[in-house]
Parts: sequence; C-alpha cells; structure tokens
Amino acid sequence: MNRIIDEEIFLKEYNPNLFEKVSVTTDLLVFSISDIVTNNYRKLPEKIMSVYLVNRDNFPFKGKWSLPGGFLDPKETLADTAFKVLKRKMNLDTLYLEQLGTFDAITRDPRMRILSVAYMALINRQDLPRDIQACSNWFNIVRKGENLFLQNEQDSDLILDLSDKGSLAFDHVDIVLTGLMRLKNKIEYTDLVFHLLPKEFTLTELQNVYEAILGRKLLAPAFRREIKSKVEATGNYMTGSGHRPSALFRQRKNENVE
Amino acid sequence: MNRIIDEEIFLKEYNPNLFEKVSVTTDLLVFSISDIVTNNYRKLPEKIMSVYLVNRDNFPFKGKWSLPGGFLDPKETLADTAFKVLKRKMNLDTLYLEQLGTFDAITRDPRMRILSVAYMALINRQDLPRDIQACSNWFNIVRKGENLFLQNEQDSDLILDLSDKGSLAFDHVDIVLTGLMRLKNKIEYTDLVFHLLPKEFTLTELQNVYEAILGRKLLAPAFRREIKSKVEATGNYMTGSGHRPSALFRQRKNENVE
Repeated sequence: MNRIIDEEIFLKEYNPNLFEKVSVTTDLLVFSISDIVTNNYRKLPEKIMSVYLVNRDNFPFKGKWSLPGGFLDPKETLADTAFKVLKRKMNLDTLYLEQLGTFDAITRDPRMRILSVAYMALINRQDLPRDIQACSNWFNIVRKGENLFLQNEQDSDLILDLSDKGSLAFDHVDIVLTGLMRLKNKIEYTDLVFHLLPKEFTLTELQNVYEAILGRKLLAPAFRREIKSKVEATGNYMTGSGHRPSALFRQRKNENVE
Repeated sequence: MNRIIDEEIFLKEYNPNLFEKVSVTTDLLVFSISDIVTNNYRKLPEKIMSVYLVNRDNFPFKGKWSLPGGFLDPKETLADTAFKVLKRKMNLDTLYLEQLGTFDAITRDPRMRILSVAYMALINRQDLPRDIQACSNWFNIVRKGENLFLQNEQDSDLILDLSDKGSLAFDHVDIVLTGLMRLKNKIEYTDLVFHLLPKEFTLTELQNVYEAILGRKLLAPAFRREIKSKVEATGNYMTGSGHRPSALFRQRKNENVE
C-alpha cells in the first residue's frame, strides 16, 4: 500500500524533461511485384520486385527520391503514424506491415537528431487504387551482377544506383537494402510471399515471385515439391491466348491458426 | 548551386521543435546458456537458456525485475547507449548485439511517452567476469507444457510467470517473448548459436544448446548431419570421470567472409 502511494507521489513530481528528448519519424518501405511484359506473346509476363518512392518537394534533400514518411505524434503509436502516411501518400487503408528496424546514425538528418523507425509493407499491386497502381512512383528493383538499381517503371532512363548512398534522401538506401535482406531471409520460412500475390495465382507466377525476391532462378520440380504444403488448388484455371490453361492455386491456411 | 544555398538557409531557420519530441530508452535482453547439473555423475550437465534481469531500485515498478536499460543521450547512437548499459550493469565491454525492435505502446511507461529500442545480446557465460557469471541476476527460462517461466538460478523459489505481463516491469515480458521467438527463428539459418558457446565444445553440448533454444529434443544423427558444414574438429578432447573422452569442435569460418 505504501509502495503504491510512494509511486503516485513519484509520478506526480516526475520531471519529464530530466532526459533530453529526440524527434522520431516513421519511414515506409512499400514492396510490391510488377509484371515485365515481354514481346513474346506466348510467354507469361515475368515478375520483378518494385518499391514505392516519393519525390521530395521540401528541404532537406528537395528533389531527391525517398521513402514516404512522417513524424511520430507522441499521442499515437508508430503503427498509427505508418498507416496515416500510407493513407496520405498512397490512399491505402490496409496492408501487411512489419517493423524493419530503427535507424539512428547521428548525422542521418541534417535538421537535427531524428530517429526513424522503418516499416516494411507488402502489397499485391492489383489491390491498389488504379491511380496508385499505375503512377510514376514505382521503381523496379533491377540486379546487374552484384549491384542493385532502382529503375522507374514509367521513365526507364531514371535509374538510381543503390551502391551509392546518395541515390536516395537521408539513409533511405540503407533502409531499402535492409528490407530486401529481411524479405529474402524470411521468405523461405514464413508465408510473407502471399501478401504480394493476388488471391489466386499459378504455380509459375508464385515461382517467379520467389525468384524475383531471391534474385536467382529455381528449378521447377524442386520448387513445386517444397511449396506443395503451402498452397492448394482452387479448381479454377487461367486461360489466355498462346498458352495452355494453368491451374490456379491459393494459400493453404493452417487450420490450427484459424 | 541555388538549391544548396536554399537548403542552407532552410536549415539555419529550421525550428527543431516544430514536432513534439519523445523520450527514448534502450533495453537489453541478455541471453546466455546455463548448465543444469544433474545428480547422475555419468551424465554431462544439461543446457538451459537464461536471461539477465535487474531488480529495480527506483520508481516506477520499484522492486520488480526488469531488463537492464537506460535513456538515449541524443548525442549518441542507440548502440552506444546499449554498450554503456552493459558496462554499467554487467561490467561487459563486448558481446554480440542485435536490434530486436522498438516497443511503443502508449501506456508502456507510467511516467510519460517513452519508446524503448530493445537489443538482444548473446554471450557465452564463461566469457563473463566471475562475479557476473555467478550473480543472483540470472533467471533460467523454464518450459512447462505451453507456458514459460523465469526461475532464479540461486533462489529456485523465485519464479516469474511469462504468461502474466505483470511479472516484469514495463512491457518487458513482451520484449523477452519477442527475443525468444527471434532467436528460435534465426538459429537454424544463421550462426548466432556460436555466440552462446565457448570456443571449443562437444557436439552433444552444441545439440543441447539448440534443444534449449528450440524447446524440443533433436535426433542426434539428423542433427549431426545438418550441423556438419558449420563446425570442424579441433583435435582436442574433453575428458572427465564417468564418460568417454569427447571430441571438441569449433565453428567453421566461411573462408569467403574472412
């Protein structure tokens, strides 16, 4: 009893400015999958990972591409802030969000000490509002040997080199690379991949998405053996000119979880 | 050129208090492995995971067990703060540290809005200063069915139930559970486990550490097949009364990395 009263007195007299505070922002790394349409009409479109960037219209780093982000309101959670940013910049209400990490290099922001808590979001392109699906903010993640580049989907001459930290505002190159690594590490032992796909998909599409994330080709028989327990046939087929109908699958939900 | 001058002016005139700031702390989840000495002298000691806690001598949560932690000094990085806490509370200079996540529930601290960036540290018990190795701050992580408990190593009657969030100060039960999950998920595809072991170990010890982290028994032949590529024989043997000499192994370093 005494302890509770002591704690009440302590809290009433507590000086919240005893320790210097810092500014905190949230940055959003929104990954999706784009189709690369090839010239060969018999071939299905190839898959490539893409990321959503905004061009900064304010200082600092005015004119540079950056991850969408915003300041944390101390009355809200970081996830609240993340969802507000998604609503404001992408008109999105829901999607898969996971905390990627807190980035805190002392000089990462020229204004002052600002920590950024980065979130990784995964979304199926087709679930986006039409204007966001096709806007000029999407960059394909292109590998050339060991190097990674971001290539604007609508302006193929606009290429950002991820080996140059100055290619994006702040330390956003680090955040992008951390997110790519996280996704690559987690994709084999989690069900994260399904957030990037429509509800129904062919096994070839699913394999192409894995390949886009892992950055290497997979052997179809081994891939199908390993993925078998994660998917189930829907009974539907994708048809189209130039290729045979393909069976459509969906994620198999673990019954213990539902 | 104009843009650089504009940015300079912008930064000079920038009001750092435009957005309300928050307090940030770092909390440390220090995991280690303890031996449970069994009565049977022929049996090697079993391994169990343990965590280092401190008893709070200040409000709030005075008298409760908690993770060691401290406030972030805005002139330092989060890792600097983490290492300072380790030095002050455990007299430790180096160990493996990885950011676990930022915990930000609005009411997690009764003083005010405080974000905590939690770090997970992994250490081989034998590398600790003697007084820290044997102190009363270590709690074994004990599983009983689906439930997890923390049992003080020196006072076996002191048991904290991790299914009760009030068992530790703040939201530290959440941080402990998040760290256990992270370690369990990462142990199979990373080399994290070796931070918990001495430089030389038997394969039985290594298997027991895996079992302690995964919370289940492994089959020795399958375990040895899978671990083979990660370890190499040192040529040394552990001898002791009651059991045959066992070959000692060490982590095999990837030559491409060195």
